[in-house]
Order: sequence, then structure tokens, then C-alpha cells
Amino acid sequence: MKVNGTPQRTIWTEGDAVCVLDQTQLPHAVAIRRLETLEHAAMAIADMWIRGAPLVGVTAAYGVALAMRRDASDAGLAHALAVLGRTRPTAVNLQAKLDEMRSGLTSVAPGERAFRAAALAAEMADEDVRVNTALGTFGLPILEAIAQKKGRVEVLTHCNAGWLATVDRGTATAPIYAAQAAGIPLHVWVDETRPRNQGASLTAWELGEQGIEHTVLVDNAGGHVMQAGRVDVVLVGTDRTTRDGDVCNKIGTYLKALAARDNGIPFYVALPSSSIDWAIEARAIPIEERDGREVTHVSGLTDDGRTETVRVTPRASRVHNPGFDVTPARLVTGLITERGIAEASRDGLSRLFPEHAS
Amino acid sequence: MKVNGTPQRTIWTEGDAVCVLDQTQLPHAVAIRRLETLEHAAMAIADMWIRGAPLVGVTAAYGVALAMRRDASDAGLAHALAVLGRTRPTAVNLQAKLDEMRSGLTSVAPGERAFRAAALAAEMADEDVRVNTALGTFGLPILEAIAQKKGRVEVLTHCNAGWLATVDRGTATAPIYAAQAAGIPLHVWVDETRPRNQGASLTAWELGEQGIEHTVLVDNAGGHVMQAGRVDVVLVGTDRTTRDGDVCNKIGTYLKALAARDNGIPFYVALPSSSIDWAIEARAIPIEERDGREVTHVSGLTDDGRTETVRVTPRASRVHNPGFDVTPARLVTGLITERGIAEASRDGLSRLFPEHAS
Repeated sequence: MKVNGTPQRTIWTEGDAVCVLDQTQLPHAVAIRRLETLEHAAMAIADMWIRGAPLVGVTAAYGVALAMRRDASDAGLAHALAVLGRTRPTAVNLQAKLDEMRSGLTSVAPGERAFRAAALAAEMADEDVRVNTALGTFGLPILEAIAQKKGRVEVLTHCNAGWLATVDRGTATAPIYAAQAAGIPLHVWVDETRPRNQGASLTAWELGEQGIEHTVLVDNAGGHVMQAGRVDVVLVGTDRTTRDGDVCNKIGTYLKALAARDNGIPFYVALPSSSIDWAIEARAIPIEERDGREVTHVSGLTDDGRTETVRVTPRASRVHNPGFDVTPARLVTGLITERGIAEASRDGLSRLFPEHAS
Repeated sequence: MKVNGTPQRTIWTEGDAVCVLDQTQLPHAVAIRRLETLEHAAMAIADMWIRGAPLVGVTAAYGVALAMRRDASDAGLAHALAVLGRTRPTAVNLQAKLDEMRSGLTSVAPGERAFRAAALAAEMADEDVRVNTALGTFGLPILEAIAQKKGRVEVLTHCNAGWLATVDRGTATAPIYAAQAAGIPLHVWVDETRPRNQGASLTAWELGEQGIEHTVLVDNAGGHVMQAGRVDVVLVGTDRTTRDGDVCNKIGTYLKALAARDNGIPFYVALPSSSIDWAIEARAIPIEERDGREVTHVSGLTDDGRTETVRVTPRASRVHNPGFDVTPARLVTGLITERGIAEASRDGLSRLFPEHAS
């Protein structure tokens, strides 16, 4: 997608380094970080310079490639996979990509591993773009049908399942960008998405860069705009979806799914099938408890252009900061995948992905 | 309730002035503002130095008293009522208190109005404390019953319907303070309550001052803690309730009511009956659209003790900032009033308030 009018991806190579946009500085500054070592890549993931399941996976793959340049031994490979695997416990996609790297590299001679790892990571990046393009293709008819009836489409989204969460196009945003390309008039309600404000800082920024009309809301306001008839469809991403169609996504998604159901508004989840965890039950999904400072402190730009962090809670008050919640399948209208739209159920997913049906 | 261990109210007179806690400075500083004129009182309400339907009403009444000291003519009275009536459009209680002041002062000779107005305002303050004490008395058995079963009570609350929203004791907090006095072990989940963070800044602070165990959550997390079985009851306040039991309260309340229903958790609203609007339908309640800066900017304390305001959204992004939403009566387990607990329905309210049944 575009930054200042120029098409670019969220991750690319440049000489010996892997470059990423430092998303912690958005929307106030466009900063690029050069990742040159395994530790850089692990930090990029753990400190969320980059985030979003698909981009985390590709960054981890590049992290393995960076590690192989230093130490391509079996021990070096095992170390890299372990370090990267610990960076974000909830992201199933991360583990899947690391497993792919393991199986793609184990049988390769150490002297070849650095080159092969870089090639595998680049293939994963391209595959992510292909998958997201397909999500756009399969999601587009949902927006087209609404536009045919109402003349325009009002989408609500939560967190950032956008271009910035992937290599390009995004997951939940892919149908939106496809609709824009198809000339469909649309407007996106962007949930702020506390505590990290990925909606306010990332989704709003990326939609703005693509010239898509949007409005930022506090997370509390989503139910009200639905009650007021101002939302036609909810489109979100997911970090992990079970084979039963239960959707683990950014904290607060469940509340929007409840409100969508209560107001008869379709609630779709766009996902690469790589984020489906075919083995886990919803109750067993580990929910990352993140640093309380994300709740107690807010960062932003002062009127005179300084970045500041301010405390918003009393010093004496405890905080609880679960990063994700699980939206039960019964609240999900459909799962938009790279093979088409599945009903959010074991049957629905099995029909589209028969290889996992057993 | 207590500030630094000393019992005090949120509003009191001191010589010629009316004093209030400046709640915009909480939780970082305890600052007292002296209101000496009608304009001060109007500013205190409009700029939310004080907030909460009951405290807004009492402050407005004192505002009339301050105005009468300057100009106690019929025109002066009409002017004061008009100025104060425009400060917060959604607060039905404000208008009710101003109507009481009008009828209490119109037949009084101008020379007597300043004294009479001050007496009326003081009576309203005392009445508010009596009403809230009754809310505590009627709400307490709900918490007692949970404690008898589970040994302790986990309450979730949204915004600040606490001591700070009233003259003393609070509405939603009155049962909590009554439970504390009764020795019931309890813990309160405090929704941050964006965009103004009244939960994080006010409810957390006041619970802390009373020594009540509590944990601050972002608004997004309330559904997840309910799914996890960590909430026994939701207790909130209201700005305006219809005769059918529909509850207009701080934006985001509706989402918590949906989550409570989805998880079989009772959802109670505590209210003085003065906040019931017997004439209005839910659809007709005007929803205050507040300054977008509340969404785009966040204020707090830097680590080195300065108050700073930071922007969290892209400069180019629009925002929408509705202040309230309406929770339909079907999601409300009961309305805790000063006469007892009413079913959230026309019948339920009519039984407790037969004088309004027609």
C-alpha cells in the first residue's frame, strides 16, 4: 500500500538488513528500523515495532535468516527458533512459520542455510500478499451487495488487521481496499482499540494514506453507532481461530460481535488459513497478559511536537491487561479465507479445508 | 466519603463561596475550586470540574444561589436558569433541579431569594445523600447474597457513578460502600471509560481512598473478564432512565450490558428516581456529541510530575464522540432506586412510583 503516495510493503530487504516500519512511532512519524541480527528481529516482534499475526510470522522467518548468517549450525537454528518462538505467546501463525523454517532448513547443509532461509522468508512474504489479495477478492462481494442496496458502505473495524499487520493489503482491510479499487463509496469506523490504540494510530493512519474516508471512535462508542443504524458490516482480523470457528482477536472484539448480533449487523472475520489452529479448543487458547503500563500510561505527541508518555491512572491502583478475547463462533457471520467464505463452524471450515477435516 | 482519610463531601459552602473538588485534576492532584458567581458554576458544569447527574443538579442549584446574590430580579432568575440549563443537554436531573429552584424562588420576594436559594441548594445536597444511602441499603442484599454463595463479590462498574458523581456515597458505589461497611470482602473491576477516563481517574481514585480493592481495565477487557467468570455483578449509574426502564448512561454501558447478558451476569443500574424521565421515549433521548479533542488527545502526568496532553490519532483523521448510549430495558436485571429495586419496565417502575403511573 502507499506511504506518502508511494507504494511499499511493511517489510523488505536492503543489503544485509531487513527493514520494517517502526509502527510504535505511527501515526506521528514514519520511521524505518534496520534489523541486522536475530536479537533485532526478536525485539521487533516482542516490542511490537511490527505486529499483526501475518507480519509477525514473516518477520520471524526473516529473523531466522538473520540468525543463520551468524550461526547456521543445528544449535544455532534451534536457538533462533526458540528465541523467536518466545516473543508472542498468542500468535499461532508465528509458531507455524517457525515450523516451516525448521522443516525447510533442517535438511539443508549449514553453509546453505542463510541463503535458503532468506529465500523462504521472501516466499512467505509473497505468499502473504497472494493470500491477502484473495481475502479481498472473496470479501469484496459482501461490500458490493451492501453498496448495491444502500449506495455506500459503512464498515466498522477493531484494532489493526490492515496492511500494517501483514506484508501488504491487510486481512480485514483487504476487502476494503478491493472495494475502493472497485469504486464503491465507503466509510470506515475505526475503533481506537485501547490499550495500544492500534486503531487510532495505525488503522486510521493507513486508511488516511490510501485516501479512504474514516472516523475514529473510542471503543465504547461502537455499540451506539450500531444502534443508530450507522454500521452496515463489521470486519475484523484474528490472531487465532479454532476449527470450530471461535475467533481469538484483539481484546474488545467480542464486545463488538455482541453488539453486531444485537443489531442484526453481519460480523465477518478475515483470515489467512495459516492462523487457524486446527488442534486447539477455544477454552485452551492462552490469553497473553500484557504489561500493565500499556493501561496506566498513554503515549502521543504534544502540541509542540514532542513525544510524551503520561500516566492516566492513580499510582495505587492495580491494572489487568489481557491482550485478546475469544468471540464464540455463534456470533460470527462468516470467515473470509483465501479459499472463500466459510461458515464459522467445524463443518464450514472442513468444507473449505478438507485436508484438515479429520 | 474520605479524602486522605478525612470524611468530606464533593460540594460544600465556605463563606461566600461554594467549593467543589476539581475532578479534572484527579487522580493526580486534589484541587479545590471556589465558585463565586453564576459563571463559575456554569463553567464548573460545562467544563466538567464536577460531573455526574446528581452533583450536576446540586451544583446548578448552588449556581442559582450564587446568581441571586448579584441579581435576584425575575430577569436575573430567568437568566441564571437559562445559562445553567444549557451546560449539559443530556442531564435530565439538571433540568429537574433547575425547575425546583424556579418554583421555589418565583413566589419569593427578590430580597429573600439569595438566602432561600442557598437553603434550597443545601436541602438538595442533603436529600442526595439520603437518597444515595437508600440506594446502598437496597443494593446491599444483592452483594450479600453473592458473598454468601461465593465468599466474596466481584463487581464490574463503568464510568464514575461514585461518590464523586454525587454529594456523597455515590449511586452505583453506594451498595459497594454499604458492603464494605458490612464487612463483605469485595473487589471492583473499574472500566477505564474512554474518552474521559472517569473510571481510571475518578472511580479508581475514590475506591482507593476508601481502601476498596480494585483493578482498572480498558473498556475492551470487560467482556473477557466476564467470559472468564471473574465478574459476579455489574453495577452502573445512569444519566437518564425512561419510564420503560431504558437506561441512558456513559458511552459503552450498552456493550457491558450485552456482555453481562451473554454470560448470565446480573446487570443493575442504581439511580435516584429524580433521574427518571417519565415523559421521554428511549429513541428521543438527545445524545450529546462532545468535543472530538476528548478522543484525539489524552491528558495525564509525566514521570517527572508534569501534566501533559498528547495527541493519539493522526491529524488528518476525523473523530466522532457520542457521550452516551442507551441500554435497552431488556438487558437490565433491575433498577436500584431509593424506594427499592424495580424491574426495568413500565410496570416495574409504576409499582414503585405509582404517582407517575398515569
